[in-house]
Parts: sequence; structure tokens; C-alpha cells
Amino acid sequence: MGWGGAQGAGFEMKAEILSVGTELLLGQIVDTNAAYIARRLAELGITLHRKTTVGDNLARVSTAVREALARADVVIATGGLGPTEDDLTREAAADALSVQLVESPETIADLERFFASRGARMTENNRRQALMPEPGAGRLIPNPIGTAAGVVFESGDKRVICLPGVPREMERMVDDWVVPYIRDRLLGAGGAQVIRSRVVRTAGIGESTLEERIVDLAHGRDNPTVATYAGGGECQVRVTAQADTSAEADAVIESVVSVLCQRLGALVYGFDGDTLEEAMGRLFAEAGLTLACAESCTGGLISAAVTSVPGSSEYFDRGLITYSNRAKVEQLGVDENTLATCGAVSRETAVRMAAGVARVAGVDIGLSVTGIAGPGGGTDAKPVGLVHFALADLGRPSVIAARIRFGGDRASVRSRAAKFALDLARRHLEDHPAPRQ
Amino acid sequence: MGWGGAQGAGFEMKAEILSVGTELLLGQIVDTNAAYIARRLAELGITLHRKTTVGDNLARVSTAVREALARADVVIATGGLGPTEDDLTREAAADALSVQLVESPETIADLERFFASRGARMTENNRRQALMPEPGAGRLIPNPIGTAAGVVFESGDKRVICLPGVPREMERMVDDWVVPYIRDRLLGAGGAQVIRSRVVRTAGIGESTLEERIVDLAHGRDNPTVATYAGGGECQVRVTAQADTSAEADAVIESVVSVLCQRLGALVYGFDGDTLEEAMGRLFAEAGLTLACAESCTGGLISAAVTSVPGSSEYFDRGLITYSNRAKVEQLGVDENTLATCGAVSRETAVRMAAGVARVAGVDIGLSVTGIAGPGGGTDAKPVGLVHFALADLGRPSVIAARIRFGGDRASVRSRAAKFALDLARRHLEDHPAPRQ
Repeated sequence: MGWGGAQGAGFEMKAEILSVGTELLLGQIVDTNAAYIARRLAELGITLHRKTTVGDNLARVSTAVREALARADVVIATGGLGPTEDDLTREAAADALSVQLVESPETIADLERFFASRGARMTENNRRQALMPEPGAGRLIPNPIGTAAGVVFESGDKRVICLPGVPREMERMVDDWVVPYIRDRLLGAGGAQVIRSRVVRTAGIGESTLEERIVDLAHGRDNPTVATYAGGGECQVRVTAQADTSAEADAVIESVVSVLCQRLGALVYGFDGDTLEEAMGRLFAEAGLTLACAESCTGGLISAAVTSVPGSSEYFDRGLITYSNRAKVEQLGVDENTLATCGAVSRETAVRMAAGVARVAGVDIGLSVTGIAGPGGGTDAKPVGLVHFALADLGRPSVIAARIRFGGDRASVRSRAAKFALDLARRHLEDHPAPRQ
Repeated sequence: MGWGGAQGAGFEMKAEILSVGTELLLGQIVDTNAAYIARRLAELGITLHRKTTVGDNLARVSTAVREALARADVVIATGGLGPTEDDLTREAAADALSVQLVESPETIADLERFFASRGARMTENNRRQALMPEPGAGRLIPNPIGTAAGVVFESGDKRVICLPGVPREMERMVDDWVVPYIRDRLLGAGGAQVIRSRVVRTAGIGESTLEERIVDLAHGRDNPTVATYAGGGECQVRVTAQADTSAEADAVIESVVSVLCQRLGALVYGFDGDTLEEAMGRLFAEAGLTLACAESCTGGLISAAVTSVPGSSEYFDRGLITYSNRAKVEQLGVDENTLATCGAVSRETAVRMAAGVARVAGVDIGLSVTGIAGPGGGTDAKPVGLVHFALADLGRPSVIAARIRFGGDRASVRSRAAKFALDLARRHLEDHPAPRQ
């Protein structure tokens, strides 16, 4: 057999994932297995059309397997392979495919060895784990790090691959056995098309504005596809392409990514797994400049983000979280008059905080934030969500100030304000690259 | 209507969850929304029979809604409600139920106000978010913290509830709107069996040790069930009970929780959604004591956690992130001799940092952390993951020092160290409660 090879490039192998476990339906655990398998399938160029979760119930698992097989060529099930009464995925798959299960003497021997090596006794329950498809209807998938072996049922062109639910064991079996099995035995030498994608990461633009700017690239295309995502206070554009080889897919992607970068300019801070704090840090390191932060409402989030990057000690000197007014006066030299006249949340205070922390720390750039994170403390003139920012560049010298009203709750105001501050510093360094005096 | 009331106690309302998003099928994100909704449904006594994930494809979403409605009374869909072209859950649900969508003038007005308040412009795309079921076929679900309102379609006894995919918004809307809607309007007074659970939160103990201490409570019970979970540097015990009424379920739970609390003592810091920083903050507020932090390797994580709690300005004065050695000398008065002789990562430096920040800030308690987060900077004597902590209590006066070697990567070392520091302060205040001189 060989879907890709035998049936030509036009044929697309379809797969579905079936997660089995009542604990998943009760929300007691999050299904990370499905995401893992989905990524591996995508790398093989296999399109996943659906993912289903059902509880530990023989009839429901069997129905779900039958329905999935009606739509897909390969069903990968996780969970329900253990030794207990409610582990019944293997029985359900056998039922759905009308295959008999027989006890495998080799598996019994393996289990006995496994338990003996741990000085433990094999229970009657464990014998259920040695039930395998009748000869010709499938085979065992070895589990090198646990007792629950996997099973693949092979019936005509359909395959049901059953794996244990323990993530570590499941992942190992996918990498060692399932991926080679699908690639070599099902897709054959011809292979399926490869799916690759690249994420363009932006800061400082909302999702709908972003989409408007690139709507002509996104609309009506199916290779590559261009889609926007928002989350965590920033927006991303994902470009996904399908091709015969990775190199071809990458070329298709790059042609669109270069247009995106041209159009979005400095709004683009990075790609794929890049973070805003890495992008900012890289600019500081390249310019040989140093940074210190003065935070009020963000309470340490900016400094924590900056120092999350390995090697940040090269450019980050210190962060002063001046939560009380007294701290702003004592640590940063904000004068009491400014606090009394303009208030702690004001342009004037933000500017004095930024200049103050740069001077105290003896660094090139001081970055400050002061705002009202809520839920209390808002007034008509200074509502919850109002945040003032300043950046003092002692080398030029210059000061930038900004003011934003963020929506959302305390956590959201704080995290968006921290992102904005990091981006303020990033854009300043983009606009004024090294070398300086 | 009212399933429970109208149809008697024997009737069981069936629900399914539908997660919409190609990124879920590519494994690019893990579906935490489904678990959240599943937990809330379980608390209402509603059995979830199936959870399905499909991509951003109108026909597939529509088919999935139709299939789910054939099995279930209520379908809760998440994702695909944003302003962009590939957000089509609302259209798919309308198609599945043969309902017309019409533009809601109220929603347009709400969106205009939302954008105006942020000084932003509403785009044409955003108007799609104002499409609502025709009169009598459903209504809007308000989104208090974002632009993507939800929609409930009401058709005979069937309901399709569509929520945005952003977890924070989705969670808020489930708690504020969906749970009351299902409880009061669908289940009515009669109600099904109730499933309730309570989480006992601990700090300072590993999962296997915790499990050993409570194994007799966990084993062989099915009402209540007792299960341990580890994650985010702490361990939790979840006690779940099923009963006819919430009061009965709660009584069953409390009998086990009181044994757990007795057995685990000060390891228990809180319950359910409590956080360690809240528990610590409550003790500071009750004792009328003040806190300042001096952080090195955690880079602001401790201060950020402390200030994530509303009202923390009552007890938190400032945090000094002395990343460079110079900052430790200048801000905290750590003497250069100590840094030269013992090193920045040492008991001596940690103690001087804690005492220094308490003195500089004029607070009761100074808390410090200095360590090697990695990946670089480790030596044989001071390996990556080594962290020193100190707490200086100027009121008593006393100093506590601790030293831990954490495993894991930079992010893990930093977050575990921050948790440990918060717990050090919590336990100190538990041991030495107010009042003081």
C-alpha cells in the first residue's frame, strides 16, 4: 500500500484524532496529546480534519471510531489502554472493525519480564493489556517505557492506531513507531505533500486594522493561506503553504512573508517563536546600549520579561519597582511637588521616573510606566486602564512620552502595558540605531 | 423551558463542546477552553458526552454543529467569532439551524463606543461581529472585556452557544452568563445530580510525597474522589463529590477536606482559585506589616506576583531588581567585599540584600533572591539552578536564609524560585502572626 505513491499527487490522506477519557470530558485534564499528534501529522503533510473526545464507554468509543473511519483513512486514538476495567479503547476499535482480539503469548511474556524486573507481580488485570488483533488484522506497537503497549488495527485501506494516554509514553511511541509507520508504510516513497508555516509577529496594531492592511493577501487564496491571530496583547500573521518538498513550501511562504514585511514595516518585530523581549534585547545588544526600568502599575512585569531572555544581563542593569509614592521620590528623585500637582499617574511623573532611573542606574535608556491597573483607584479624569509611559534616552538626549487607555481587567491592563513599554523601547532603537556619539 | 423541572429528575441534559480553529488541528495551540467549560458543566451536573474540534471551514463547522445537535440538547462552541474572514462559527451555526443573521444596531453602537473610548476607528470587518440571530431565534451574550460578543441560538429545545476563543474572555462569559443561563433557564428548579469539587492548594511539597501522605484517602473511593495534580511549581488535591444537592455534595467534600488540612498543616495555603500571592498578601494585610523585595535571578517575577493582587499597595512598598553587581551595591548597600569574597550567588549576599531592601524601603520585611537561572553562568561549585533566598524581619529582628537547587530550564528555575520566595514569606507570617510591638 502507499497512499501518496500508489494514488498520485492528487490524493490526500485524511486523519482524525480520537481522545478517550472521562477525565477529559470532566475538564480535569487538558488534552495535550492531541496537539502533539496534530503537529507530527502536519509535519508529514497530513491534514487533520477533526478531533473528537469521548468518555470511557464502550458503545460511545466504538461509535466514534466507526464515524471517524467513515471520514478518514487513519484514526489515531489515545487513552483507554491501561489495565483497568474502564480501559476499553482496544475492545471498541475491534468492535468497530469487526476484528477478534486474541491473547498474545509474546506480550504476556513481555509483561511478566517487565514486572519481574521491578520486583512486582503481574495482576490478572494486566493480562487484558496483552489482547491483540487476530493474525492479519493488526499488530502490537511497542511501548519502551511503560506497560501499556499500543495496537494498530489494519483493515483494508483503513488504520486505527491506539496509543496509551500517558503523554511521555504516547510521545515516544509516536516518534519511534507511528511517524515511521505512516511515512514509510502508508505514504510510501511518493510521500504526501508537505505543510509548512511561518508566523510573522507584530506589535502595536490591532487585529482588525492588521487584517485590513493585508486583506488582499489573505482573501481567496488557498496556497499559501494567510491568517491573522490575536492573543497576549499582540497580533500574528500565519502563512501556511503546501508543496511537494519543504524547500518549495518555504519558497512559496517567503514570497508572501516578504510582501507582509514590506507592508507592515516596523510593526513586525519577529518570526515564529520570537518574543518581543528577545527582539528588543537584540537591538540593545547590537547597539551596545544599556537599560533600566522604573515600574509602578506593571509591578515588575517589564523587568521580568526583559530578564527572561538569556544574556540580558549584558544590557539590563536594574529595575526599580516604585510602587509607593515615597519610593518614587526616594529611588528615582521624582519631586514631591510633581506628585502633588500632577499625580502619580501623569505624563510629568512618567517622564521624571524614566529620566530618574536612567540617571540613578547610569544607563543609556530609562523606561517608565505608571498607571491605574484597577479594579479600584479610578476617577473620571483618570479612569482604570489609564497608563502613562516614558522613555528617556540620555545619549541623544531625548524623551518620548505616551498615554494609553487599556481595556480589560487588572491582569490584562498590566500585561498589555508591559508589552507596550517593551515595544516603545524596541521602536526607539529601530528608529535610532547605533552607533552613537 | 426547564429540562430538569419540566421533565422530572430522571431526565438528563446532554451537552457537547465544539472547538473551532485550524490552529487547534495543526497542534499550534492546546485547547484549554474545552477543559474549562467541561468543569463548569460538571459543576452544574451536566454530563458531557463528546467534544469535537474542527477547522475554520464553513461546511465542516456547520456539519459538526448539526451532528452535535442530533445527540445533545446544548452545544457550546468556542472560537471563530472574531472580525476576520475565517471567523465563521456564527454563520455555520445559523446555517445548521436554518436561522437568518441580521445586523444588530445595538451591537454596532456598542462596538462604536468601545473603539471610540480607545481612540480607535471601527473597521468594516468589525461590523461582522454585530450579526445576530433574527428576532426570536436567539440573542447576544455580552463580552465585558473584548469586542467579540457571544451569541446563543435558540431553536425549539435546542441551544447553540457561541463564545469567542480568547480564554480570558470566554471564561468570563461562561461564569457571568452561560452558567446562570443554563442553571436558571434550561435546568430550571428541578436540576440533575450535582457534581461539585474543591481544590486544596499546597506549596512546598512534591507530588509523590503528597500522594504518599494521602494515599489512604485517595484509594478505592468513588464519592468523593480524591486526586492530586502537579503544575506551575505547586501541587493541588482535588476532592469531587456527586449528590442530589449542592449542600449534600459540599458536606461530603468538607469531611475529606478537613482531614486533608489537618494532615498537611501549613503546607496548605488556600483553596480553589486562591493563589500563593493572595494567601501571602492576606497575612501581610492582617498583620499590618509591609514588604519590599530585592530580586536578582527572578528579575521582577516576585514583585509582579505580589502586585498582581488588587490592594497590594497596602503592604507592598517597592521592589528593587538589582541585576548587576553595581546595582546590588548602590541600591541595597551590599558591600563589595562580600560580592568579591562570597560571590553574588551566596547566602551572605542574599542576607545583605534582604536586610538592605528592608532598611532602604523602611518596611518590616525584606525578601531577597539571588541565583543562577541559566542556561549559562553555572560552575561546579555553583551550578545552574542554585538559588539563595533570605528574609529579614526588622521587627523581631531575625533573618532566615535558604538555598535550593532547582531543576529545569531558565523559565522553570525563575518561576519556581519566585514561588519559593512567596512561600517563605507566607510561612514566616504564619509562624509569627501579628500583633507585634
